[in-house]
Amino acid sequence: MNRGVHRTGAVDALTLEDFADVARDRLSSEVWDFIEGGAGEERTLRANLRAYDRTLLSPRVLTGAGPPGTGTRILGRTWAVPTGVAPTAYHTLAHPEGEVATVQGAGTAGVPFVVSTFAGRSLEDIAADATTPLWLQVYCFRDRATTKRLIRRAERAGFEALVLTVDAPRLGRRLRDLRNDFRLPAGIAPANLDGGGFASPGGHALAEFDPALDWSVVSWMRSVSSLPVLLKGILTGRDARRAAEEGVDGIVVSNHGGRQLDGAPAALQVLPDVVSAVAGACPVLVDGGVRRGRDVLAALALGADAALVGRPVLHALAADQARGVARMFGILADELADAMALTGAASVPDIGPDLVRACGK
Amino acid sequence: MNRGVHRTGAVDALTLEDFADVARDRLSSEVWDFIEGGAGEERTLRANLRAYDRTLLSPRVLTGAGPPGTGTRILGRTWAVPTGVAPTAYHTLAHPEGEVATVQGAGTAGVPFVVSTFAGRSLEDIAADATTPLWLQVYCFRDRATTKRLIRRAERAGFEALVLTVDAPRLGRRLRDLRNDFRLPAGIAPANLDGGGFASPGGHALAEFDPALDWSVVSWMRSVSSLPVLLKGILTGRDARRAAEEGVDGIVVSNHGGRQLDGAPAALQVLPDVVSAVAGACPVLVDGGVRRGRDVLAALALGADAALVGRPVLHALAADQARGVARMFGILADELADAMALTGAASVPDIGPDLVRACGK
Amino acid sequence: MNRGVHRTGAVDALTLEDFADVARDRLSSEVWDFIEGGAGEERTLRANLRAYDRTLLSPRVLTGAGPPGTGTRILGRTWAVPTGVAPTAYHTLAHPEGEVATVQGAGTAGVPFVVSTFAGRSLEDIAADATTPLWLQVYCFRDRATTKRLIRRAERAGFEALVLTVDAPRLGRRLRDLRNDFRLPAGIAPANLDGGGFASPGGHALAEFDPALDWSVVSWMRSVSSLPVLLKGILTGRDARRAAEEGVDGIVVSNHGGRQLDGAPAALQVLPDVVSAVAGACPVLVDGGVRRGRDVLAALALGADAALVGRPVLHALAADQARGVARMFGILADELADAMALTGAASVPDIGPDLVRACGK
Amino acid sequence: MNRGVHRTGAVDALTLEDFADVARDRLSSEVWDFIEGGAGEERTLRANLRAYDRTLLSPRVLTGAGPPGTGTRILGRTWAVPTGVAPTAYHTLAHPEGEVATVQGAGTAGVPFVVSTFAGRSLEDIAADATTPLWLQVYCFRDRATTKRLIRRAERAGFEALVLTVDAPRLGRRLRDLRNDFRLPAGIAPANLDGGGFASPGGHALAEFDPALDWSVVSWMRSVSSLPVLLKGILTGRDARRAAEEGVDGIVVSNHGGRQLDGAPAALQVLPDVVSAVAGACPVLVDGGVRRGRDVLAALALGADAALVGRPVLHALAADQARGVARMFGILADELADAMALTGAASVPDIGPDLVRACGK
Repeated sequence: MNRGVHRTGAVDALTLEDFADVARDRLSSEVWDFIEGGAGEERTLRANLRAYDRTLLSPRVLTGAGPPGTGTRILGRTWAVPTGVAPTAYHTLAHPEGEVATVQGAGTAGVPFVVSTFAGRSLEDIAADATTPLWLQVYCFRDRATTKRLIRRAERAGFEALVLTVDAPRLGRRLRDLRNDFRLPAGIAPANLDGGGFASPGGHALAEFDPALDWSVVSWMRSVSSLPVLLKGILTGRDARRAAEEGVDGIVVSNHGGRQLDGAPAALQVLPDVVSAVAGACPVLVDGGVRRGRDVLAALALGADAALVGRPVLHALAADQARGVARMFGILADELADAMALTGAASVPDIGPDLVRACGK
Repeated sequence: MNRGVHRTGAVDALTLEDFADVARDRLSSEVWDFIEGGAGEERTLRANLRAYDRTLLSPRVLTGAGPPGTGTRILGRTWAVPTGVAPTAYHTLAHPEGEVATVQGAGTAGVPFVVSTFAGRSLEDIAADATTPLWLQVYCFRDRATTKRLIRRAERAGFEALVLTVDAPRLGRRLRDLRNDFRLPAGIAPANLDGGGFASPGGHALAEFDPALDWSVVSWMRSVSSLPVLLKGILTGRDARRAAEEGVDGIVVSNHGGRQLDGAPAALQVLPDVVSAVAGACPVLVDGGVRRGRDVLAALALGADAALVGRPVLHALAADQARGVARMFGILADELADAMALTGAASVPDIGPDLVRACGK
Repeated sequence: MNRGVHRTGAVDALTLEDFADVARDRLSSEVWDFIEGGAGEERTLRANLRAYDRTLLSPRVLTGAGPPGTGTRILGRTWAVPTGVAPTAYHTLAHPEGEVATVQGAGTAGVPFVVSTFAGRSLEDIAADATTPLWLQVYCFRDRATTKRLIRRAERAGFEALVLTVDAPRLGRRLRDLRNDFRLPAGIAPANLDGGGFASPGGHALAEFDPALDWSVVSWMRSVSSLPVLLKGILTGRDARRAAEEGVDGIVVSNHGGRQLDGAPAALQVLPDVVSAVAGACPVLVDGGVRRGRDVLAALALGADAALVGRPVLHALAADQARGVARMFGILADELADAMALTGAASVPDIGPDLVRACGK
Repeated sequence: MNRGVHRTGAVDALTLEDFADVARDRLSSEVWDFIEGGAGEERTLRANLRAYDRTLLSPRVLTGAGPPGTGTRILGRTWAVPTGVAPTAYHTLAHPEGEVATVQGAGTAGVPFVVSTFAGRSLEDIAADATTPLWLQVYCFRDRATTKRLIRRAERAGFEALVLTVDAPRLGRRLRDLRNDFRLPAGIAPANLDGGGFASPGGHALAEFDPALDWSVVSWMRSVSSLPVLLKGILTGRDARRAAEEGVDGIVVSNHGGRQLDGAPAALQVLPDVVSAVAGACPVLVDGGVRRGRDVLAALALGADAALVGRPVLHALAADQARGVARMFGILADELADAMALTGAASVPDIGPDLVRACGK
């Protein structure tokens, strides 16, 4: 077996891993480490992947399903596939076009894009090329005015939802970056934070994060915007129940790609707890470790409404810009359609818990 | 320890793995990959093997069994050993004689042969040399007339049962073949599909498979043939129960040798569910991962009536044609007899669930 | 860390593994393979070792135990340590002195010796040097007169018990020997089977084993000898219960050192089932995988009366003859005393089930 | 990723493992083996580490915690962090300054120091530089007068508690030291045992340990000192309950860093049993395998009041003397604060059982 991709370029990519192989070659090792790395010994990072590897799917036969439809509706909008771009900082690290290329690729693929507060391109530039839903990932800064201004800009640019990150009262210890003494390369900067009140636009400026956020932040978000508010970073049924009680519009089950607390469980592992606690009150999304169409199917079978991908987007961007992103999501969609066909699922609502084989059963 | 087989030829083979070693040397890497490969990352492929590796057998002593009898009766016919040739495409890839050599070897060993729709030799040529039961594996094409013509020919040639594959509404993503850009070598073609209505005899022509088969296919099969109909590719108790309700004549528990949905459970793992759901209504066979006589015993102890072998037949064919196939099944029979003697089983019906040690017990 | 043993000889051995290292160097690879090998892929062989590796001991403190006493009484005789020589064929393969050196070493160590039917030295020569209990391991041949003559000789030579092997209706498939085409070297032969009625004294003569032994063999043994009769090779509670009902004088839980049915469970793993089924009706011994004093303690904590060692005896013999055997058992005794002291056990009866930590507890 | 520490010295250490890397280079292999080694095959040693690796933490969000406070109170004294120096022999092996450097580093870090009976520096010298609590680890010798004299000196020097080791009726078999024929280098000796009555001050003098200690030692300790008495080396709920009944002032759950009984469970693994048995009657500390701030959090979540570190102190000492020790505890404190922030714990009492994710839940 020969991974043709190394010889002939990203066009030959057959799996999401192929994009990673290309990106690893193209990016500097420091940038690669910044993108790939996790906190601590990266146990949670690996756990995210392993959780999908270990999940067994239970195929049904003769369901008469025919070619499956992968489309789904979330927060009133249709997505071509129940996946999308998870928020990650500085797409400009992967390619100078950055988030603008990403939004073009996501548009081609028909999937939404959750733009990071630390995007390398302006919200307006991104929105200009958007043909699929844009959501804004939000960090709540000590200076709430900064956060508020960002939300206002997003609203004006046509963003459709806010995804508040709640797992970052401080930055996780990312040893690769510490050992590399990683600094953003020249020209890479947060494109949407250079307004007043934000002290250190260079670096991650984590010092500016509010370390004492509590549940009242939900009503504060409501007070500054009428956009739907999702919380990202919930990993327990208890917090999910509370979020539902607070009336959030959605939850993203996430351990921040293994970049915050090393030792946290895999996102997929806690997904059923969250789904059960939320009890349908709002959509539940998940990110972390999704690398194959069957991973998306597994997440949906365990109750997620969609499964977002982070690092593979950057890999695809590094490999082939907007075309890479579109192709990466195309592979994911094809693989999902395959997995749906082979488990007898005609449509996304057909993907139920019976498609996952419980351990020991 | 020295695997003498490499020096002195297949005659020295002591285990089924020895045949694989010879075949790996003799076949081109592309053909080897086509034979060996599975879907995706081949997790299900490996799971098939591991499931047998992990099964513990519980020997009984002083049963007075004497030399065990390995014969069994299935669908009214006696098999010398409760195993046989699982359907795999193009035996001509392993050796130009293809299925004709296979049927000779199976005959010598006294075991049945399930011939693939994609056989490299004609049903009539195969039948001419058959001395043991022949069954035909059937794909249901969009153009049912093609399937019907094939069944008719099989009936006329003396085939005794039909094995409808139900796990292939589309082809699994076999990355080795995709990376190799695998195409059938010159001279290799489906020998029984060149009649009208079959658009692309080259390649796998999966485009022709009916992607929307449902349970009504069972009565359609009944309407075109009076041969017994078995369903191959069932992996859940629910589908097995439904199959029994539909009155099928047998079930083959199978994940298609790990070639369809990567992430599906090992065949052995789900066998007890199927056996319990079927409750004796029809024979249950299993394939995928059988490499030793004790694997056959394990499958039977868990309720299977027989355990078919796929890849090892092709390995044996590549190593030593008909003689290789006969010897391979001879080793399997010897190993089974050993395992039966050492677990105190005098005959196939003696192989009960008490011979498998439940985990944790 | 440096295993000094390689430089300076067996006298430096600190663990049983050290003897194996020396023996591996001194023996031909074919003889080493014959001694070390197991059936099939040697999964059961490895499982024996792993079962001890995985057993957790639960130390008690402040029991006031003082230096522990390792002595025990079994079948009316005192053993210095609850271990002894498990039956293995042809000690003459390890050293020309063979079983005579073994019996001297066992005597120095104060432990019993279960002599194999396939001993390389005569029962009388072995008995001449014995200072600790001798038991005879017995295979029941098709020609019972052969077995009877052997038992008579053992009785006359002062052997104190008979250990009937019940797990060998036929020989396990030992692939190393088959691949090596292993034959006994010149001068190595069963010293106690050259009388009439035994057709093929060379090789293992397994063809002569009675393949259809049943429980009536116990009363037959009683009819030919008044010595205590133990059954060796029991691996289930059901067979143990039956053995107790038949009034046997002891049971040896054993999978024949992994040499018979590959896939059988580890001896230690099934020990609790056997102990529970026997319910104190007779002593229960165990062999297979014992390599450390704490393994002996684990076996006793799980209900065994003693844990026999096989291969390490041959290693010690190859390394340093009688002195090696004595030293090997000395290390085992020291390690057992250490483990007893560190778990607060003053004496063998003090070694109870509370010293093993159940999984998950 | 590049561990800068190798190039630029200990000042760059980012994790406790970095100190180990430096120390491994600086110490002779015999001394390294003495420090690192465990008993037997070091399974318990590795189990200590793996138990923490496998523990999953369950982050809570939006608790409004703010920057966490790591301080705690134990036996009436405030510790800056719920960790401290576990007793280990001869810090002078790691650096000539030995325990005097350690006490300075511990003082800078605000954590206590449990000094070993086999300290390489005098209790008085250590106490002279102490700014945080000093406890004395005590072995009970056959000659109780020796133990008593040591306790008296500790009292006079201002030590605040006595930690009686109860898991050493004899020395564990530390194979590295046996193979190295390890002897204390010139100049390394127990600085506090050269008084009369102690026969062999060189080496470990384990021959002098009382092998028959029982629970009456607790009242004997009370009779010679009014200092609080903790028992170190308890690994079962039963012994913990008994200790509580005897009125001890604390328990240290410990397997002696894997140096006594190989096969004993990981300290963390048995911690919940002990905590439950003690039921709050006294503080419970734990040592063995703590290498990260999140390990401290895990131990506290499972009920410990503090988690002591042993080998990393010696590594830090070898790497950078007092400054190394202070920095090592600083890293541990930072990592703990990170883990607390990321699990939403504002203070040590906030670290409850809900922060650990039970297996299978």
